[in-house]
Amino acid sequence: MNHTSLAPLLLPESIAVVGASPKFGGVGGTVMHYLKKFGYQGKVYPINPKYGDILGWECFPSLVDIPGEVDCALLGIPAKLIKKTITDACSNNVKSAIITSSGFAELGPDGKRLQQEIVDIAREGDMRLCGPNCNGIVNFNSKATLCFSKFLDADQINTGNVGFVSQSGALGGAFVDRAQDRNLGFSYYIAPGNESDLEVVDFISFLIDDPNTSVIAAYVEQIRDGKKFARVARKATEKGKPIIVFKVGVTQTGAKAAASHTGALAGDDLVYNAFFKQNGVIRVNTYDDLIETTLAFSKSRLPRGNRVGIISSSGGGAIDLSDKSEICNLKIPPLTKKTKKELGELLPAFANLDNPVDLTWGAFRGGPEEEIEMFKCIAQDDNFDVIIFMMSMVAGERARMRAGTMVDTAKAVDKSFFAWWAPGNLAQPAYEVLDAEGSCISLFKSSERCITAIKAMVYYAKFQKQFKARNNQTELAIDTSIARKQTAGLLGGKDALTEFQSKSLLSCYDIPVSREKVARTEDQAVAYAKELYPVALKISSSQIAHKTEAGGIFLNLTDEQQVRDAYNQIIANAKNYNPDAQIDGVLVAEMVPDGTEIIVGLKKDPAFGMTLVFGLGGIFVEVLKDVSLRTLPITREDAFDMISEIRSYDLLKGVRGSNKADIDAIVDLLVKMSALGIDFQDDIDAIDLNPVIVFDEGKGVKVVDALFIKKA
Amino acid sequence: MNHTSLAPLLLPESIAVVGASPKFGGVGGTVMHYLKKFGYQGKVYPINPKYGDILGWECFPSLVDIPGEVDCALLGIPAKLIKKTITDACSNNVKSAIITSSGFAELGPDGKRLQQEIVDIAREGDMRLCGPNCNGIVNFNSKATLCFSKFLDADQINTGNVGFVSQSGALGGAFVDRAQDRNLGFSYYIAPGNESDLEVVDFISFLIDDPNTSVIAAYVEQIRDGKKFARVARKATEKGKPIIVFKVGVTQTGAKAAASHTGALAGDDLVYNAFFKQNGVIRVNTYDDLIETTLAFSKSRLPRGNRVGIISSSGGGAIDLSDKSEICNLKIPPLTKKTKKELGELLPAFANLDNPVDLTWGAFRGGPEEEIEMFKCIAQDDNFDVIIFMMSMVAGERARMRAGTMVDTAKAVDKSFFAWWAPGNLAQPAYEVLDAEGSCISLFKSSERCITAIKAMVYYAKFQKQFKARNNQTELAIDTSIARKQTAGLLGGKDALTEFQSKSLLSCYDIPVSREKVARTEDQAVAYAKELYPVALKISSSQIAHKTEAGGIFLNLTDEQQVRDAYNQIIANAKNYNPDAQIDGVLVAEMVPDGTEIIVGLKKDPAFGMTLVFGLGGIFVEVLKDVSLRTLPITREDAFDMISEIRSYDLLKGVRGSNKADIDAIVDLLVKMSALGIDFQDDIDAIDLNPVIVFDEGKGVKVVDALFIKKA
Repeated sequence: MNHTSLAPLLLPESIAVVGASPKFGGVGGTVMHYLKKFGYQGKVYPINPKYGDILGWECFPSLVDIPGEVDCALLGIPAKLIKKTITDACSNNVKSAIITSSGFAELGPDGKRLQQEIVDIAREGDMRLCGPNCNGIVNFNSKATLCFSKFLDADQINTGNVGFVSQSGALGGAFVDRAQDRNLGFSYYIAPGNESDLEVVDFISFLIDDPNTSVIAAYVEQIRDGKKFARVARKATEKGKPIIVFKVGVTQTGAKAAASHTGALAGDDLVYNAFFKQNGVIRVNTYDDLIETTLAFSKSRLPRGNRVGIISSSGGGAIDLSDKSEICNLKIPPLTKKTKKELGELLPAFANLDNPVDLTWGAFRGGPEEEIEMFKCIAQDDNFDVIIFMMSMVAGERARMRAGTMVDTAKAVDKSFFAWWAPGNLAQPAYEVLDAEGSCISLFKSSERCITAIKAMVYYAKFQKQFKARNNQTELAIDTSIARKQTAGLLGGKDALTEFQSKSLLSCYDIPVSREKVARTEDQAVAYAKELYPVALKISSSQIAHKTEAGGIFLNLTDEQQVRDAYNQIIANAKNYNPDAQIDGVLVAEMVPDGTEIIVGLKKDPAFGMTLVFGLGGIFVEVLKDVSLRTLPITREDAFDMISEIRSYDLLKGVRGSNKADIDAIVDLLVKMSALGIDFQDDIDAIDLNPVIVFDEGKGVKVVDALFIKKA
Repeated sequence: MNHTSLAPLLLPESIAVVGASPKFGGVGGTVMHYLKKFGYQGKVYPINPKYGDILGWECFPSLVDIPGEVDCALLGIPAKLIKKTITDACSNNVKSAIITSSGFAELGPDGKRLQQEIVDIAREGDMRLCGPNCNGIVNFNSKATLCFSKFLDADQINTGNVGFVSQSGALGGAFVDRAQDRNLGFSYYIAPGNESDLEVVDFISFLIDDPNTSVIAAYVEQIRDGKKFARVARKATEKGKPIIVFKVGVTQTGAKAAASHTGALAGDDLVYNAFFKQNGVIRVNTYDDLIETTLAFSKSRLPRGNRVGIISSSGGGAIDLSDKSEICNLKIPPLTKKTKKELGELLPAFANLDNPVDLTWGAFRGGPEEEIEMFKCIAQDDNFDVIIFMMSMVAGERARMRAGTMVDTAKAVDKSFFAWWAPGNLAQPAYEVLDAEGSCISLFKSSERCITAIKAMVYYAKFQKQFKARNNQTELAIDTSIARKQTAGLLGGKDALTEFQSKSLLSCYDIPVSREKVARTEDQAVAYAKELYPVALKISSSQIAHKTEAGGIFLNLTDEQQVRDAYNQIIANAKNYNPDAQIDGVLVAEMVPDGTEIIVGLKKDPAFGMTLVFGLGGIFVEVLKDVSLRTLPITREDAFDMISEIRSYDLLKGVRGSNKADIDAIVDLLVKMSALGIDFQDDIDAIDLNPVIVFDEGKGVKVVDALFIKKA
C-alpha cells in the first residue's frame, strides 16, 4: 500500500464537486456549503452545466472541462451517471474520487457488477476510490469537508488527534456529533462505504502515518483481509498509536443484519475477539464506549500498571468504582504508610485514611492550594498507577474550583488521571475545565465507561510493553522444512485421509500420537496387537469417516480371541454400512492410558485464515462451549494464554488432590499445530484432534484420534 | 408499619428548621432558601436564638418555644446538640425529625451508642426519625424541600411519578440532577442516611401507597431485613409499582468499602441477586441504568412480550440493536406477510422489507402524515410487542418532525415504544419532543441502556403475569407437621449430628437417603452388610466431621472379610486420629449406583435467612462455581428455575447419548429442603447434602452424604 496514492483523497489541494448546486440540501449543494462555511483554502471546482458559478467558485459543465489539476472529485450524482463520470475523471487525470451514490453492491449482483466495472476503470486510470454508498471524508485540519453528514451542520468542528473511520456513514456522522459535545477533536472522519477500492484498513494505515493523528477509532462491521489488518495493526503498535474498534455483528441475528448491510458475510465473533487481542487492537462493545474509550486514549496518559487510587466525594461512588474495578481486574491497593503519614498531617484526625479516599466527611477546609497539596499527596503514592476522582453532587462554582485543583494535580504528577462526575448540568463549570485542552484528565459521566476505558488503556500499555520485550518477535520460529518434505503429496489425492494417515502426518511434525498399525489380515491384527495390549481396533477406510456409527470401533481388547472376533466383526460391519467403501484394513492401536481429555482443532476462516481452537474434551466443549481461539501464527505465550483462559483451566492445574497435567506439552502441541496449520493453509479446511490425552506433568500428551478435512 | 406515622415526615404541613440561618451555605440556611425558592406553602418555624425572623418567617429560640404543631423538624446542627434537641422535640410533640448531622454509627462504637440513645428517646416520644448522616427529604409536590443537596440549586425541580430512595445522599442528589436533565420527574427524594429508625424499605413501602408515585427507584448498599423487604416487594407487585434497585457492593473490594461506609456488613451478592429475582425487584448494574431504566418504566407502556420491531435510519444501528437484543434474550421476529404487503404499497419497490426495517435507502419521500402511516403499519405488526426507533445523524428541524411522527405513532398504537437517537446536541429538537410529557416514548442515547431497560420491563411484565397466574401463591404448601414432631429434639444436644442422624432427619421429610445402619460391633457390621452388598463403611462419631481425613471411610466392600478388615481398621484409625472422640460405631451403607452427582445446600444469611443452593457436584461447583441460589421459601417453579439456570444444565437433560436425569425428583428434593430449611431456621447455620446422586428419569435421587451445622 503506497500512501502517497491516498494523499490526493485525504489531503486534497484541489477539489471538484460533481453535482454541485447553490442549494443546500442535496449532496453536491450541501458539500459546497460546508466547504464555504468551514473555509477550505484549496481550489474548488463545482461541476454543473446549469451554473456559471456557485458560492463564488467558477462552475464547469463536466470534469473534462477543468483546466487545472484535481486531487479529488466528490460525486454527488445518481448511480447511473457514475460510470461515465469516472471515465471523464480518468481522462482528465483526476487522482481520486469519493462516490457517495448508493445503488451498487449493497443492492445485489447487478449492482456488484456495476461497482466492479467502475473500480476497473479507476484502476486503469490510476485513480483511488472511496465508496460508493458513503457519506464522504472530512479532513479537519484543512477543512476539506468532502462529506454531507449532518454533523457538519454544527457551527464549528473540533480539530484534534483522533482519526475516525466508520463502515456506517449514518452512525459515523452521529458519532462525531456526540464526540464533539464531549470536546473530542478529530483529524479525520472517513466513511469507506462499500469499500469497492479502499477499505477501512487502508485508511487506518494512512492514519497511522498521519502526523496529526495519534489515536484511531473505527466502527467496523467486517474485516475483509485479516492478514492485511494484522500488518497494519503491527505498524500501529510500533508507532504507539492505539486502534479502538467497535465491531458489531456479534450474534447470529446481528450477523444476519450485517450481511444484508454490507453484502458480505460477517466473520465468527470469537475469531474477531482473538484476532483483536493478539494484535493489540482495543475492542469496545458499545457505541458509547467507542466515544469514551477513545476520549480516554486521546486525553489521559497511558497507565504504567493496573493499580487504581480513588479520591471520592461519595462513599457510594467509591463502592461502585471498586465493584467495577474488581470485575475489570483493576487493583485497589491500600495507601502506603508514607502517604498515610503525610495525608494524616493534612486531614482532620477522624478522616479515614484508606483507598478509596472518601472525602464525604467534608472536613477538609483548606483553599485550592491546600487541596492541590492533598491531591498530589495521594496521586504520588507509589501504590498507584491510575487516579480516579469521583465527584457526586459537587456543582456550580465549587465544581469549577475543584476541577481546577484536579487539573493542576494531573499536570504535576506523571500518572494516568480520570474523573467520574455523577451529576447533570449543574456541574457544567467543572466539565468545561476538565474537557478543556491540555487538562490530562478524561471526564466520564458513567463509572462503568470510566473503568472500561481504564481497563482498555491498561491492556494496551501491557501489550505495548510485551511487544517491545519480545523484540518485535511475534511468531514462533519452528523449522518445518523436513516435515513439509515428508508430507509432500500426502494431501494430493482426492480421497479423505484415514485416521492412520492423519496421525502419520502429525508424527512428521513431532506430534505424539498413539502407537498403531494398519492390519490387512486377521493374523496381522493379532501380531500387531501382541506388542500393544490392551488395544483398540478401528476400521481404516477413507470412505468411512464416522467409525462409531459404522460399528467400526472395538475398545479395550486384551487377548487374541477378542482381537480376531473384533477384526471380523469390524470388516463385516463396514461392508454392511457402506458396500462401496474401499477398506484399507483395520487399525490396531494401543489403548492410551487415562488422563485429561482435550480437543485441539484448526479451522479456516474466510477473513483471518487458519484459526486454532483449544478446549477440554467432552462436556466442556460440547455443553459449556468452553474454548479459546487464536489466529495463526501463535507464540508460546499465546499458547499458554489459550490454555489458561478457559474457564475449566483449574482442572489442568490439578484440583481436589488430582495431579497437575502436562501443560508444557500442550503448549508444544499448540505451537506445532500452529506451524502445521500455516504449512497446510492452502490444502486444509479443518483438522480435529479429538481427543488428545494429557498426562501428568512431565509425561506428555498423545493424540488418540485425528480427522483432516481437505479443502472443499 | 403504620404509614400514617410517616405522613408528618413525608407530607409535613408544618416544618421546623433547627439551625436555620438567613445565610445560604450551611444546612439550616440552605434549607430555608430552598423552602422559599420553591414556594413551600405550609407553616415554617426557623429555630435560631440569634434571629427574630428569617426570610420573612418568625424565628424561635428553640423547638419548645414553637406555639403550633410541628409535623417535621429538620436538624441542621452538630452531632453533640442532637440528643438535647430530640428531647426538646419530644417534649413539644414534634412528630418527626430529619437528622442531617454526621458523627454517629458511621464513626464506630461510640457514635453507634449515641445514635441508639437518640432513637430510644424518639421512640419514647412517638417520633419517627430519618437519618442521622443524611441530606434529607424532598416532597416534589408540596415543595417541602427538607434537604440540602445541591441538586436543589436548579431553577426548578420536575414533579413526576418517580419516588427515589438513596442510601447514599451524595450519589442520590447527583442522580436527581442527572435525571432532571432527562426530564425525569419525581414525587420524592429520600435519603435515609444511617437508618437509625426508618430504613430504605420503610420509605419504599410508603411510596407504594403514595398516589403520586408509580415507579420506585432506589440506590442500595445493604438490605437489613430481607423478610420485611420481601413483604414490601409483594405489596409493590400487587399494586403494579415496579421497584428498580441499583445495589452496589457486588465484589469483595466493593463489600469492604460498603462495610466502612454503612457500618454494617454487606450481604453476599448472589443472595441479593436471587432475592431480587424471586421478589420481582428489578436490579440494575450501573448508576446510568438506574436513571435510564427508571425513565423507561416512567414513560413507556409495559411490553406484552419480548418481540422487538426495529425501525432504523442506519444499518449499523440496526445491527447493534440486534446484537444487544440477542444477548438480552429479546427476539427480532420477521414482519408478518400482512405488514410486508401493506408496507410494500407505502415504500419504493427496492426497499428491503425485513425486521429491522432499515430506512437508510432514504427513498421515503412522503410528508409527516405518510410517515405516521408507515410507522403505524410497522408498529401494528402482530409479531411485535416492542418498537424501537433508531435514528443516526438525523438532526435539527428534520429531527423534530421525525420525533413528532414517532410520538403520534406511539399514541395511536398500544405497544411499548423506545427510541435510540445516536447523535449529540444537533438532534436537540427531537429530544425535546420525545422527552415532553405524554410522549409514551422513552428516549435513549445508548443502545445498550435502551435494550437493558426493555429487558427489565419484559422481565417485570412476565413476573407480574406469573404472579397473577399463581393467584398470589408464592410459597409451596408442604405439611411438615409430622416431620417436625418426629425430629423434635434431634438438634437439642450440644453435639454435632452424625451422618446417620442427619440422614434420619432427612428421611422424616421424605427425602431419599442411602440405606444404612450403624454397627456397634464387627459382627453387626457383617450382618448389616449382608443385606446391602456392595457396601461402604464409615466412622460414626459426632466428634469426627472429616471422615476421609480420619481414615474413616472404606468403599465398595463386597464380602465378609473385607467388611471385618475395614471395620477394625476404621475403629483403629479413628482412635488414632482423635483419641478423645466418642465413637458411636461404624456406618454400614449401601453403595449407591452411578448417576449424576449434585450438591444441595442450605446456608443462613444474616439479612435474608435461609438460602438454598444447588449445583452439579465435583468440578462444576468447585472449579466452575456453577451454582444457583434462592431465598426461602421456594415454589416448584423456582426449584425448576434453579435447576435450569446453571450453565451445566444440559448435562441433566442428557447429552451425547447419555440419559435424561430425574429432574422432577430434584425439584421434589429442593422444595422439601425449602420446607426443612424453614422449620429449622432457628437451629441450623448450614446443611450440605453432598453428594446427592440423581438417577435416570423416573428413578429418583438419593442422598449419599449429609452434614448439618448447628447454629453457632
